[in-house]
Amino acid sequence: MAKDVTSREENYSQWYNDLVVKADLAEQSAVRGCMVIKPYGYAIWEKMQRILDAKFKETGAQNAYFPLFIPKSFLSKEAEHVEGFAKECAVVTHHRLKKDPHGKGLIADPDARLEEELVVRPTSETIIWNTYKNWISSWRDLPLMCNQWANVVRWEMRTRLFLRTAEFLWQEGHTAHATSQEAQQEARRMVEVYADFARNYMAMPVIVGHKSPNERFAGALDTLTIEAMMQDGKALQAGTSHFLGQNFAKAFDVQFANKEGKLEYVWATSWGVSTRLMGALIMSHGDDNGLVLPPALAPIQVVMVPIYKSQEELAAVVEKMNVIAEELKAKGISVKIDDRDTLRPGFKFAEWELKGVPVRVAMGPRDLAAGTAELARRDTLTKESVPVDGLPGKIAALLDDIQKNIYDKALAYRNANVRKVDSWEEFKTEIQKGGFLLCHWDGTVETEEKIKEETKATIRCIPIDTYDNEEEGKCIYSGKPSKGRVVFAISY
Amino acid sequence: MAKDVTSREENYSQWYNDLVVKADLAEQSAVRGCMVIKPYGYAIWEKMQRILDAKFKETGAQNAYFPLFIPKSFLSKEAEHVEGFAKECAVVTHHRLKKDPHGKGLIADPDARLEEELVVRPTSETIIWNTYKNWISSWRDLPLMCNQWANVVRWEMRTRLFLRTAEFLWQEGHTAHATSQEAQQEARRMVEVYADFARNYMAMPVIVGHKSPNERFAGALDTLTIEAMMQDGKALQAGTSHFLGQNFAKAFDVQFANKEGKLEYVWATSWGVSTRLMGALIMSHGDDNGLVLPPALAPIQVVMVPIYKSQEELAAVVEKMNVIAEELKAKGISVKIDDRDTLRPGFKFAEWELKGVPVRVAMGPRDLAAGTAELARRDTLTKESVPVDGLPGKIAALLDDIQKNIYDKALAYRNANVRKVDSWEEFKTEIQKGGFLLCHWDGTVETEEKIKEETKATIRCIPIDTYDNEEEGKCIYSGKPSKGRVVFAISY
Repeated sequence: MAKDVTSREENYSQWYNDLVVKADLAEQSAVRGCMVIKPYGYAIWEKMQRILDAKFKETGAQNAYFPLFIPKSFLSKEAEHVEGFAKECAVVTHHRLKKDPHGKGLIADPDARLEEELVVRPTSETIIWNTYKNWISSWRDLPLMCNQWANVVRWEMRTRLFLRTAEFLWQEGHTAHATSQEAQQEARRMVEVYADFARNYMAMPVIVGHKSPNERFAGALDTLTIEAMMQDGKALQAGTSHFLGQNFAKAFDVQFANKEGKLEYVWATSWGVSTRLMGALIMSHGDDNGLVLPPALAPIQVVMVPIYKSQEELAAVVEKMNVIAEELKAKGISVKIDDRDTLRPGFKFAEWELKGVPVRVAMGPRDLAAGTAELARRDTLTKESVPVDGLPGKIAALLDDIQKNIYDKALAYRNANVRKVDSWEEFKTEIQKGGFLLCHWDGTVETEEKIKEETKATIRCIPIDTYDNEEEGKCIYSGKPSKGRVVFAISY
Repeated sequence: MAKDVTSREENYSQWYNDLVVKADLAEQSAVRGCMVIKPYGYAIWEKMQRILDAKFKETGAQNAYFPLFIPKSFLSKEAEHVEGFAKECAVVTHHRLKKDPHGKGLIADPDARLEEELVVRPTSETIIWNTYKNWISSWRDLPLMCNQWANVVRWEMRTRLFLRTAEFLWQEGHTAHATSQEAQQEARRMVEVYADFARNYMAMPVIVGHKSPNERFAGALDTLTIEAMMQDGKALQAGTSHFLGQNFAKAFDVQFANKEGKLEYVWATSWGVSTRLMGALIMSHGDDNGLVLPPALAPIQVVMVPIYKSQEELAAVVEKMNVIAEELKAKGISVKIDDRDTLRPGFKFAEWELKGVPVRVAMGPRDLAAGTAELARRDTLTKESVPVDGLPGKIAALLDDIQKNIYDKALAYRNANVRKVDSWEEFKTEIQKGGFLLCHWDGTVETEEKIKEETKATIRCIPIDTYDNEEEGKCIYSGKPSKGRVVFAISY
């Protein structure tokens, strides 16, 4: 191995950290809780951005950009929102540093204290709805659908690269509608965009559902979520879409004249995914050799490693590889020829395995003579000798197959770890084994909180599409009637 | 007109503000000095980003992401840098708000004061070089070339949309090299990338040159710049590329083992362009009817406006327009059919003129019968009746012609306003008329500062490629010998 990775069995949490750092995805910065996203990690994020951005635009959303700073008074305007977001945030109090008259360093200049403190946005509902007030006056201005790609800051006490960082990158969509129904449809449509992206690009199975009232976004009437299962059986919330009702319209007085000329408050949604998706991607597919990237998101889809002794052999092999690489590029496949002559092939193999490149092609002088190449796939770690003739077509088909196989494998794992549980005793035992438990719940916050207190498990969602939740039964905790099963799990 | 725009002659500054706001590019936010970039403005910025990003990647640069926050002590590590950037910045002192026990609002929680204040990045040399320290140990790690697309904050006292805002969006490239020569070549290569982008996409003529020592980036040994002339004759610095020597490597102790195994400090560059380019674009080409966008950056390149009385006529015209629109899209041309039935065609014409859409196609029932359309170009405001047959090809050629014409027009204007001036008396009169003055200068900071003091003019650059500056002469101010002419102007 190029760099040792802790095995999942030995220490899952350390395995994750090893992958993030050793595969050059991200690292801690000098600023507590803030990460540096390294070029290889950022290249994956960029692929995610491009795909999602196109999907958002297909729905009619447009990109815009709103201020980084939010006046602190704005946070107070929506009662629940302030509870959720004012607590841990970065507060800007001064607009100048000056030399400390008593020392050598810099201090915040007392003469440059802001009249009103600014908060670095933890999310942008307040500043955006304050702006929308000026953009909306008539039904003709609706729907208004903006998205922004931005950085946000939430002062988390315990941070983990990608999963929970003080600063993270995300997109946040904010839409305004004339009717409650239209806003609810929008919230549903966007969670489906996220589910489609998770399944078909990240190769990550997800369950779409509603959050329980306790787990909703601060200020939302309904939060839709996609929930994925990591390889340790824990749940990871991978994207959310909120129906905000008229809460923010009322807080910022955003009304529109309807077709009858009557003033009404606007209906809102917001929806977002973040660099947390990187964590989900790593934990969904990685193995003890490193990352396993789905071809749809791999910055390098095919790596070619020449096998040689002399410089002449290297030149001959690379010449052939260049021909194949051009054919692959013409098919829209990204290729890297790793011709570094300071490293042995075995080292390179391990490095590209660590980085999760889906397909590896190795060729040496004997292959050249025989018209063959060694084709290895990252997902199954299998390899075979294949004719060079028709190789680009074979690789294209292989990439499709890998994409599908990664998804199928993750889905099989997920399904094998979803269990129906009908008694509280069984629940307490089963939840410790990890996985998703489908259980009846009486619908009350009290029960939800008791269960969390006793087991750390939370309701991940009330599923919409994946599991039928129309079955009546009795709450596992209280025994009271329930109208359907919900998904319980320990979560990230 | 859809919305009245102040004429340039009446009030150039107000004309600019009108265009920005009325063409829906940007507006002031509730946060002092921070702007909201509206969807139409952001769409232009996105086009700029896509083109520049591809050009950066062609040079071998990779994108990455570094923290928003910089510990205040980092700023002090490079002596000149701290002078330039510590003065006006957003200082984060607390990480929590709490309810004011004496009132209803929120206050920064005194118990959540940061041990070390953080500054919102005004530029990222310090945090990036602190990171590079861990990435670079050998000559094999060089060159290291990262770029980030990010927001930065500089607490400007007087702000103007796009031109000078407290928060703005930009890209900043930061490269590390083994030799001084290689770093200088990189700085030069990147200023040429900017010049190429300005000329061929923004249709904006620029002069490439070195900044005088006084106007250099804080911490640079050399700053290269592209300087454009706005329609009021003022200069606008549109992009800069800095050769930083070993200043930041020394400040953050970044050394590498060279091929002989000896430790050396790394050589650095940084380079950036920002949303200021939006201001340059608007002021380079706009007229009294609104924006004039070069086709290469126009979010909508062709707008089609149906002329009709009845709904049947509308349907018939739009049906034909759809056919043409599909053909245009197949050629990679972006089209919008404006079929809003609450607005008159004249209103729509004015609105799309205000928004600078390069080509307008109007068609009515008579055109349908005759197989014609009215084709109007935004740059010259001329229109003609043309056959619908072959229209898409004609439009494609027209867009190329408009792109070229806009550039030629701006270049002719620039050239007509560059004047050689050889005496101080003449200088004082001429500089008030606007434009660029090519003058001899003795090369001293003292003279530069005196000239600025007396006339507000600054040395925009010591030109490299556009004007021959190898002519010897005498400084207009001091009369001392000079080795070449430099560009003086009043600037934004």
